[in-house]
Amino acid sequence: MKGKVYLVGAGPGDPDLLTLKALCLLKTADAVLYDDLVGPEILQLVSSRALLRNVGKRSRAKKITQAEINSLMISMTRAGMMVVRLKSGDPLIFGRGGEEIEALRNAAIACEVVPGVTAALGAAAAAQIPLTHRHISHALTFISGHEAEQNGSVEWKRVVATGGTLAIYMPGQSYSDVATRLAEAGLRSDTPCGIIAAATRAEQQIEFTTVAQLATVQPLPTPALLIVGEVVRLARLEQTSAEDSLVIAGKANYSSAETLEEIA
Amino acid sequence: MKGKVYLVGAGPGDPDLLTLKALCLLKTADAVLYDDLVGPEILQLVSSRALLRNVGKRSRAKKITQAEINSLMISMTRAGMMVVRLKSGDPLIFGRGGEEIEALRNAAIACEVVPGVTAALGAAAAAQIPLTHRHISHALTFISGHEAEQNGSVEWKRVVATGGTLAIYMPGQSYSDVATRLAEAGLRSDTPCGIIAAATRAEQQIEFTTVAQLATVQPLPTPALLIVGEVVRLARLEQTSAEDSLVIAGKANYSSAETLEEIA
Repeated sequence: MKGKVYLVGAGPGDPDLLTLKALCLLKTADAVLYDDLVGPEILQLVSSRALLRNVGKRSRAKKITQAEINSLMISMTRAGMMVVRLKSGDPLIFGRGGEEIEALRNAAIACEVVPGVTAALGAAAAAQIPLTHRHISHALTFISGHEAEQNGSVEWKRVVATGGTLAIYMPGQSYSDVATRLAEAGLRSDTPCGIIAAATRAEQQIEFTTVAQLATVQPLPTPALLIVGEVVRLARLEQTSAEDSLVIAGKANYSSAETLEEIA
Repeated sequence: MKGKVYLVGAGPGDPDLLTLKALCLLKTADAVLYDDLVGPEILQLVSSRALLRNVGKRSRAKKITQAEINSLMISMTRAGMMVVRLKSGDPLIFGRGGEEIEALRNAAIACEVVPGVTAALGAAAAAQIPLTHRHISHALTFISGHEAEQNGSVEWKRVVATGGTLAIYMPGQSYSDVATRLAEAGLRSDTPCGIIAAATRAEQQIEFTTVAQLATVQPLPTPALLIVGEVVRLARLEQTSAEDSLVIAGKANYSSAETLEEIA
């Protein structure tokens, strides 16, 4: 639809984990504003006639502010464009999606959210860690290591006290801070941890450790996700058997179709 | 791949929220074992030559047990079939995915998990509720109302104490139990709640209320999801403007393609 913004989740990395709706919108958008973590395999699915712009915080020497991203979306839609705001994972989890929706609403711009597979689900699937389990963990809490660090030990204590699984986004450049926080918050030192870097991408790496040993683990490439809790004991430990790479996205019907009708 | 089980997430309901990989696997599977919550629009995407079987707990007069589902997957793959175990939402959240993986591993059956958009993300997108927000909520906890009820007030207190957003799966046939638990656990009576029924489906319904008023809300049809927390104040309150229904799945290229090559 013209003059509308779609906040679209790009999923955890593998282009085949895009939703059908996300792919269709990428094919038909007039402009796609994307974040740093969206990979080139996904960007190449965007129609060649569309304006494609990196608005990631790490994208350029001069940092783009959230206010500038909001203004860009508003001016583009007012000019009659159909804009896709493409975010890694799901748009409403740790992505300032809420702030963008608010800005669009205040400007009376139509907006729709298209959910995506958030990073924790991609990571859990890759490592085969059941995030909940009726005999082991009844709760699953997502936190951002980066944000929790700014809020100090109280926040860590509260999430650890749930007794459930923790999925920690952005665990940091070194794992010693998060290891200290988890131990201080009362987690048993033998609580298992899984670190999944670049989940579902070709360069995926997975390591298993414990809260006691976490600080000594050499940091994996970003983006990484840390899953902590007893359920991690159920992970697939051998990571030799690669997942089937179907590479459906970008092939034949998809990439040649430039309109919604062709895709549909 | 023959002789392998794919645990596949079917997403929150809208077939266009299937991942590309899920669609491709549905088209190429020899057998699809699905749960109750997977809708007919998704099942019609399965290849007509595939064996299609409802193994949902509510499916038949005689209940099928988890052990029977496990045996079925094992015997089918041993007979050389490629089996899709199709679960609503994501396979590793509140779906006994962990138990099925364990059974397959014990039987030395190859298994791969294909993540999906879990119900909470579909519900949040539909109601435009940011599940996290850097000024309001830094943590997001998923619990199952049904399971938490069996474990009593301790579990509710712990998750409420995170101070973050709660996404409550299966909030029950009446909301008075969950309302009582939330109030007892110390949530302010004016804490906003969003109930999203059949999120992303044609029959979607959304209602907003507060912890104080939740018990008086007439239950919406299942499946429903309850989102509780200050972020619910940011929801889109008018639900008049319907989302764009693209209905990409099941059309043209997709439904006529019976092999992976045709889809790719």
